[in-house]
Amino acid sequence: MAEKNQRIVLASRPQGWVSEENFRLEEAPVPEPKDGEALVRNHYMSLDPYMRGRMNASKSYSASVEIGQTMVGGTVGEVVKSNDPSLKPGDKVVGQLGWQLYGTGPAKAFMKVDTGRVPLSAYLGPVGMPGVTAWIGTYDICQPKAGETLVVNAASGAVGGVVGQLAKMKGARVVGIAGGAAKVKHVVDDLGFDACVDYRAASFRDDFKAATPKGVDCLFENVGGEVMETVVARFNPFARMALCGLVSQYNETEPQGLKTLFSILVNRVTMRGFIVSDHMEKWPQALAELGAGVATGKIKYRETVAEGLANAPKAFIGMLKGQNLGKQLVRLA
Amino acid sequence: MAEKNQRIVLASRPQGWVSEENFRLEEAPVPEPKDGEALVRNHYMSLDPYMRGRMNASKSYSASVEIGQTMVGGTVGEVVKSNDPSLKPGDKVVGQLGWQLYGTGPAKAFMKVDTGRVPLSAYLGPVGMPGVTAWIGTYDICQPKAGETLVVNAASGAVGGVVGQLAKMKGARVVGIAGGAAKVKHVVDDLGFDACVDYRAASFRDDFKAATPKGVDCLFENVGGEVMETVVARFNPFARMALCGLVSQYNETEPQGLKTLFSILVNRVTMRGFIVSDHMEKWPQALAELGAGVATGKIKYRETVAEGLANAPKAFIGMLKGQNLGKQLVRLA
Repeated sequence: MAEKNQRIVLASRPQGWVSEENFRLEEAPVPEPKDGEALVRNHYMSLDPYMRGRMNASKSYSASVEIGQTMVGGTVGEVVKSNDPSLKPGDKVVGQLGWQLYGTGPAKAFMKVDTGRVPLSAYLGPVGMPGVTAWIGTYDICQPKAGETLVVNAASGAVGGVVGQLAKMKGARVVGIAGGAAKVKHVVDDLGFDACVDYRAASFRDDFKAATPKGVDCLFENVGGEVMETVVARFNPFARMALCGLVSQYNETEPQGLKTLFSILVNRVTMRGFIVSDHMEKWPQALAELGAGVATGKIKYRETVAEGLANAPKAFIGMLKGQNLGKQLVRLA
Repeated sequence: MAEKNQRIVLASRPQGWVSEENFRLEEAPVPEPKDGEALVRNHYMSLDPYMRGRMNASKSYSASVEIGQTMVGGTVGEVVKSNDPSLKPGDKVVGQLGWQLYGTGPAKAFMKVDTGRVPLSAYLGPVGMPGVTAWIGTYDICQPKAGETLVVNAASGAVGGVVGQLAKMKGARVVGIAGGAAKVKHVVDDLGFDACVDYRAASFRDDFKAATPKGVDCLFENVGGEVMETVVARFNPFARMALCGLVSQYNETEPQGLKTLFSILVNRVTMRGFIVSDHMEKWPQALAELGAGVATGKIKYRETVAEGLANAPKAFIGMLKGQNLGKQLVRLA
């Protein structure tokens, strides 16, 4: 094969905010699949907030990326060579090949997908890890009931957008929180939330109060910081909080935590930190429902696509700053 | 009846720390029980941290005490007059008569108790609300398993002491946190905890780490503040945290919350705020087990008894400052 592989490795660990200098683009030969393995050409790679945690040396829920190692992450692409009968060239697959054009892995590490009714890229978004994250946090932890109020922040993001639509299906009032007028409009007009509040507005607290006249029964938390504290302070008794992410804090050397902890006690709230990979037994059902939702147009989603591997670091930093709308992808082919 | 009733009312709401000036001792006629009611002479009244919350005007999980109203609280005493066939003079009962010598109430608001094997005062401690609080938080929320490590702070208190003993019965390693050498010694020597760490010691963090070599699987939280944050930072994956109280913060105008919130996310912790009165269906089983434990000497407990109603405010403030060992009571007869 004449083409070279390209990959982005971790060049150095960030101190505070990530910068493009923390990454390095490298060339390497296209790898050869071993027995039982397949070689895949990636078409899209996923950029997700959790990757920021992998750049740290400190303990997180999964291993750090080592200096010089290819950045990890979800990918979708096409099998170009296979040494296993379960896959053949041309098959479209989801994998975990990281920030690179080509990758190999055991056939069972790839999930063959049908792109007839669901576009390939959606398997990195609403019909992939972000969608399943939304499904588990909403249905298993938040458990919104008809008439209750569910709040989700980063509401225009890959996870948040699905959370709100799933909660609407249960009859809940759904209030999003997002940054800036364009996102707020998208969340209400395109995704169908009952309301969305701009956390950058000076009137945020008042706006949020007005949008949650009956208080808050469920919180799907992606962001942390003062925005989260404002929501927590409006919890009703027996509220449920799915703690999925704290993206506003990932680049802070002194995270601010939760000042409104009293509300958890007084309102007898259940807060649960969760990670979607702990719940693999739920994936088949979640993916089936999410796939049907996307195929029928009941679940709507948006993508922001960066062009080419070299633009991945910039797009990643932009995503952490909230510059994307919907799922942040990088097109690789 | 020649004797007068005496009661302590809320004279003013505290700003920050409670002071004795926030209370006022009053005399009043002994009340007459109506049809279906009983008149009870209280022998002991309970002092509990939750009462601090009732002194505030702000929303809590139950109604505030109004200015001029008798302070609320659990009591044990003897029926002196009854207009209901279910109670007769001489019966020993648990009630919620508050900070006063005498009180009346409908017969069904009193629980008749057997003082043959369990002393009357214990019905305000290990076989009463504090004991049931320990039982529910330990068994329903913390769910310690054999070999796991459970941590409880205010370990020498009425709740904490029972928590540790219940967790030991499940085979957990139990580590207490308490203030000062006398309490630490009591918790280990008398209550049988595996270890107890003095949070006032300069070496607290190192001592706590040494006492929890395998991390922390369960936290029964009574205190809040930096001590709590130190424990939360040592959570193992899938730890459980029963949020029962935040006594270090009740007199603070700006509570410090939880700076180590990241640990809840990264370790997929379940934190649940709870209040024992939400779980009335569990009380009969809990009281039966706790009563048997106390009667057979398997559950040990200590009491600190203030003498006379007039000393209740001082004893209450002392309890909030951690000056008591075990259950804080006031003897009224």
